[in-house]
Amino acid sequence: MNHDEALARLGELRHSIDNLDAAVIHLLAERFKLTRAVGRLKATANLPPGDPEREAEMLERLRKRAIAADLDPDFAEKLQRFIIDEVIRHHIAIKSTE
Amino acid sequence: MNHDEALARLGELRHSIDNLDAAVIHLLAERFKLTRAVGRLKATANLPPGDPEREAEMLERLRKRAIAADLDPDFAEKLQRFIIDEVIRHHIAIKSTE
Repeated sequence: MNHDEALARLGELRHSIDNLDAAVIHLLAERFKLTRAVGRLKATANLPPGDPEREAEMLERLRKRAIAADLDPDFAEKLQRFIIDEVIRHHIAIKSTE
Repeated sequence: MNHDEALARLGELRHSIDNLDAAVIHLLAERFKLTRAVGRLKATANLPPGDPEREAEMLERLRKRAIAADLDPDFAEKLQRFIIDEVIRHHIAIKSTE
């Protein structure tokens, strides 16, 4: 593969990476809508805010899925924690404006 | 909404959250395949490993997309950094086994 061919292939790979990033952004935007709805529902219906059993189940399922998809399960777990921390920040922000 | 209805609705919302999480995991698994291919291509074709201009463009596009999708652009940027750090870890791991 010459230099120009390599650059063309690099451009294709980057385009696909950008498409996947766009898809992830849109899925996460949707996910935060759902967690906001969960937050409102729990507040309205007087359900407990946290659910350790559900969280442990989710994590277990996530790790299995990551392995099946050939993704490092430790990375998947760290990512999940990163996203959940953002959900918690949203919940705190909602509380503080009540 | 009574307690049972609230629990049923909570179950539905959680099911959708799980579906989105599964989709994100699969997209990221695919994204890491592509970044591995980029890493190999750059090594083979003697292209520079980093590209600050490309990174700045990606970030700008990502922030715009996040805003359009009603996702906090600062969160999107932190997430991107989190994913890129993992890509860099992969590249270092590839290097160290060469």
